[in-house]
Amino acid sequence: MTLKMDVAALQEFLREVFPQVSDDFQIDAVGENSITMRLHVDHRHLRPGGTVSGPSMFALADVAAYLVILAHIGPKALAVTTNCSIDFMRKPAAGVDMICEGRLLKLGRALAVTDVLIYSQGQAEPVARANLTYAIPPETINVG
Amino acid sequence: MTLKMDVAALQEFLREVFPQVSDDFQIDAVGENSITMRLHVDHRHLRPGGTVSGPSMFALADVAAYLVILAHIGPKALAVTTNCSIDFMRKPAAGVDMICEGRLLKLGRALAVTDVLIYSQGQAEPVARANLTYAIPPETINVG
Amino acid sequence: MTLKMDVAALQEFLREVFPQVSDDFQIDAVGENSITMRLHVDHRHLRPGGTVSGPSMFALADVAAYLVILAHIGPKALAVTTNCSIDFMRKPAAGVDMICEGRLLKLGRALAVTDVLIYSQGQAEPVARANLTYAIPPETINVG
Amino acid sequence: MTLKMDVAALQEFLREVFPQVSDDFQIDAVGENSITMRLHVDHRHLRPGGTVSGPSMFALADVAAYLVILAHIGPKALAVTTNCSIDFMRKPAAGVDMICEGRLLKLGRALAVTDVLIYSQGQAEPVARANLTYAIPPETINVG
Repeated sequence: MTLKMDVAALQEFLREVFPQVSDDFQIDAVGENSITMRLHVDHRHLRPGGTVSGPSMFALADVAAYLVILAHIGPKALAVTTNCSIDFMRKPAAGVDMICEGRLLKLGRALAVTDVLIYSQGQAEPVARANLTYAIPPETINVG
Repeated sequence: MTLKMDVAALQEFLREVFPQVSDDFQIDAVGENSITMRLHVDHRHLRPGGTVSGPSMFALADVAAYLVILAHIGPKALAVTTNCSIDFMRKPAAGVDMICEGRLLKLGRALAVTDVLIYSQGQAEPVARANLTYAIPPETINVG
Repeated sequence: MTLKMDVAALQEFLREVFPQVSDDFQIDAVGENSITMRLHVDHRHLRPGGTVSGPSMFALADVAAYLVILAHIGPKALAVTTNCSIDFMRKPAAGVDMICEGRLLKLGRALAVTDVLIYSQGQAEPVARANLTYAIPPETINVG
Repeated sequence: MTLKMDVAALQEFLREVFPQVSDDFQIDAVGENSITMRLHVDHRHLRPGGTVSGPSMFALADVAAYLVILAHIGPKALAVTTNCSIDFMRKPAAGVDMICEGRLLKLGRALAVTDVLIYSQGQAEPVARANLTYAIPPETINVG
């Protein structure tokens, strides 16, 4: 399957659509059914003790799922998250970026299913895992 | 079961432990195995089109689950979220608070299970539902 | 909203479509956005120690979600489960039926969202909770 | 990490503990943090139209998660499923085994987190994905 958006196109899309958070997120790589992103962790993402907040990791998982779908269907899609299940497994390391490896497991006419693993940069064991489903409006699937 | 923290104690705890977000969240009521909270929606919680962001609703669900547990075990607990599954069902209304109704379904020695419904104020049908599991460190269950 | 199938119609539908398991499940009540069902627990549902198996409870949650949706859209729907998240919270009691209280939280054009609580008959605290999403094929929503 | 149970030991354990279903499940391979299993699909697992039932796929995911944990902690563990989130993505193929690829993502003192992909034999795209959390009783972690 040919990608409809590359790293530069996804990063530009993010800047246009989510200007208030786009500086937090960087797309490292995108490929067939896969994406690698990072969250530039700063004080807004932290909880007492220096740990990255759950909502910040949820946001990273959500944007990675969104962008790996858009890479395959194009920038015009009004896809929305319908479900996310996330497991927080380990305490994030302090003072480093969080890396998110996402997979597109299904791209159907109406639903797309993804999963992600989230790591603290430099650590081998994942901090969190999540799976997310997006609903793709019928009219958008052909226009990307 | 006697509550170990009332609305005022929970609100004060939130202010001490999460000063950067505590103004966003207001506890309306707490009772046996139940809590009602609200998110004061402002521009930081919005996405293009005026909808409340997924991470903001996740954060509301997470804090409601946390506080209904603390109401039953006391303020010293280092409880951490281990799992959350959330369904986004309807578009939130613009310009109103989000209300969260939480239930404590199980308070075990090691795990607590909760679920929540999230509404836009003034609407009868829920915007989102979530279930969250918290791990309770062994040493904290007796100290509340 | 008027129900399109009552208890008798749902039970008959179950008998026609799932003859191999329909004797296991009994519908106690159905109403607007709600259903009460039971699993007649026998040895096939048990694990060593007399506990009801996880797959048996999953099956009960799944059929309750399915039938509360069909009660609202009619018997012709080819609805399929797309997601289930289930928490097992307590050990089921031995030798009694399991009761399932289901709610229809959203009935959209393409997706229906439900949640359930599962009890051992005679016990106040739930054994399990689950939420299930069903996909409703476009052509079936109008034909019920 | 050295495995405490190999394929033969896991298969024998399954036969002893779950005699009523052990013939359904075959362990193909087990390694560090990974397992491959299969469900021998027969008429008991089918739904009308020849599709494999949701509870049968749930059972396959659950046993794979259980056994990859036991491979690492030994056969005496009384581990129990606390949470499963499963996505059904595609219709299973008729008349073939289902293959389950499981990963052990975290083995903590109290909780183990796993995820699985389920395939119809001979097909490249997964039929289902699931993540499962098991609680490990404190006394069993050291005895395996």
